[in-house]
Amino acid sequence: MATLIFPEHPSPVADAEALRKACQGWGTDEKTIISILGRRNAIQRKLIRQAYEDMYQEDLIKRLESELSGDFEKALYQWTLDLEERDAVLLNVAIKQVPLPDYRVIVEISCIRSHEELLAIKRAYQIRYKHSVEEDLAQHTTGDIRQLLVGLVSVYRYKGDEINVRLASSEAEILHRVISEKAIFNHEETIRIITTRSKAQVLATLNHYKDDYGTSITKHLKDGSSHEFLFALRTAIRCICDHHKYYEKVVRRALNKPGTDEDSLTRVIITSAEKGLKDIKELFQKRNSMSLEHAVAKDTWGDYKAFLLTLLGKED
Amino acid sequence: MATLIFPEHPSPVADAEALRKACQGWGTDEKTIISILGRRNAIQRKLIRQAYEDMYQEDLIKRLESELSGDFEKALYQWTLDLEERDAVLLNVAIKQVPLPDYRVIVEISCIRSHEELLAIKRAYQIRYKHSVEEDLAQHTTGDIRQLLVGLVSVYRYKGDEINVRLASSEAEILHRVISEKAIFNHEETIRIITTRSKAQVLATLNHYKDDYGTSITKHLKDGSSHEFLFALRTAIRCICDHHKYYEKVVRRALNKPGTDEDSLTRVIITSAEKGLKDIKELFQKRNSMSLEHAVAKDTWGDYKAFLLTLLGKED
Repeated sequence: MATLIFPEHPSPVADAEALRKACQGWGTDEKTIISILGRRNAIQRKLIRQAYEDMYQEDLIKRLESELSGDFEKALYQWTLDLEERDAVLLNVAIKQVPLPDYRVIVEISCIRSHEELLAIKRAYQIRYKHSVEEDLAQHTTGDIRQLLVGLVSVYRYKGDEINVRLASSEAEILHRVISEKAIFNHEETIRIITTRSKAQVLATLNHYKDDYGTSITKHLKDGSSHEFLFALRTAIRCICDHHKYYEKVVRRALNKPGTDEDSLTRVIITSAEKGLKDIKELFQKRNSMSLEHAVAKDTWGDYKAFLLTLLGKED
Repeated sequence: MATLIFPEHPSPVADAEALRKACQGWGTDEKTIISILGRRNAIQRKLIRQAYEDMYQEDLIKRLESELSGDFEKALYQWTLDLEERDAVLLNVAIKQVPLPDYRVIVEISCIRSHEELLAIKRAYQIRYKHSVEEDLAQHTTGDIRQLLVGLVSVYRYKGDEINVRLASSEAEILHRVISEKAIFNHEETIRIITTRSKAQVLATLNHYKDDYGTSITKHLKDGSSHEFLFALRTAIRCICDHHKYYEKVVRRALNKPGTDEDSLTRVIITSAEKGLKDIKELFQKRNSMSLEHAVAKDTWGDYKAFLLTLLGKED
């Protein structure tokens, strides 16, 4: 469920005019920008961008980028892009991060988006970067990590809810054998199961694992020494099993980090405000005995804070 | 270019009636079946199946299966299915072949079909088998072969024609190094290049290879000892570079084999009759100083022969 509050039929032309005015003259009127863009859904934002372009022969996003700065600018930039463009940009930045790609973002987008959404993201990526996601990802990774990530981003999983119980049991056994042998050089079967089985089947297998071996697989996966790969694998498992719970953890850690991890905070709020952020808020409240709004208000400031709180559904 | 000859506006109802009559009574009228189905394009065949189902509450394909037999039945079965269903069935049979999957068919469909076609095939596969192609394929393969085939079938390649010449040169060098070191245990980079780069880029890289190292990569790939993998890799390269030439070779070998390899012959003719078979015929004529129709007529017989010749464009 979403947290975003938006009017039913705003006028894209009036919005574009107000945004233009907010960007003109000495200083920028951030408050107006937030009160408009922070209260429009994806289709409405797209219409505003089109109206703005038609009226002023200027890309609204470029204009905002030149007017704003810091975390607020980054958040507003992501928010104003089309959904598939935004994820394409997030993927590209994550893949090209130095010294190592940001596996978390790559896994999130691959495992949480639906197949149709992922397809649109990959199309947007190709149009924008004249490359495929897969080739860039494969070029910037090696070995098991490459196999895992390219598999997650490219395989078209079966979408049905049917479960093969015997298969779940036998593949739970395979996973347990590989993990207990600490055969860290051979994750082939683990990668096969996690990247190719349907989400329902992966879930059934992991439930079997828990029942048969007494603890969740993600706990067992912490023992190994190949940290990088195991981290990406645990992230994939969490995103497949319960991505709201996963996002709650990302937000909690981002806020608890000394200095706050704004990039992660922004990413979760921006990409969930129209889908799922209400569930994440509820989980956050339960887990931390504090509302997410309160925690965000405590650790952020200025326009960035005002914008995030608006997306979190704060009434004016 | 296609070889199939078909009328512009045949009546699906009249066709269904004639097919029904051909299947009724003592004996089957194969000639009529061929003269109708062998002269209809994919959309027309689909309409006939629908009309037949509406009129007789019976699946035309099941009826034909029960009336016919042998290679003729197999060919007509493949021909009467929707295009994406047909490839889904071919994939499934190839994956489950014992003792080893038929790598050739898997590679052909992955590399020759467009991304959109492949997507439709994967959807049809899921509907029919309640599994994904990828999970079945990964389950029936291991190691390098698994990585190569799952990569080919799942990666969404960049479709543009732009080429990065420096990249082509450096990746040709990588391929040459791996091949000359006979590092048959590590095909990771080869798999990355062949499965993730755009077809235009793979072609540029292979041209560089030829220019820089004096011979085509497929010749060099014959030296290794890991036959199975190298065979699949060579097939992939051929399908990506020039699939008409590749198909001509498949047909030539199928016909030259003692006893004829009917499955391969059927597959190429059925899947190309509406797209590309004319080009394959021309290549065949050039390479063998004999027309494909003549070669087929020489090595096949009965209804099977009559049907293939009809698809090859033989006038009544």
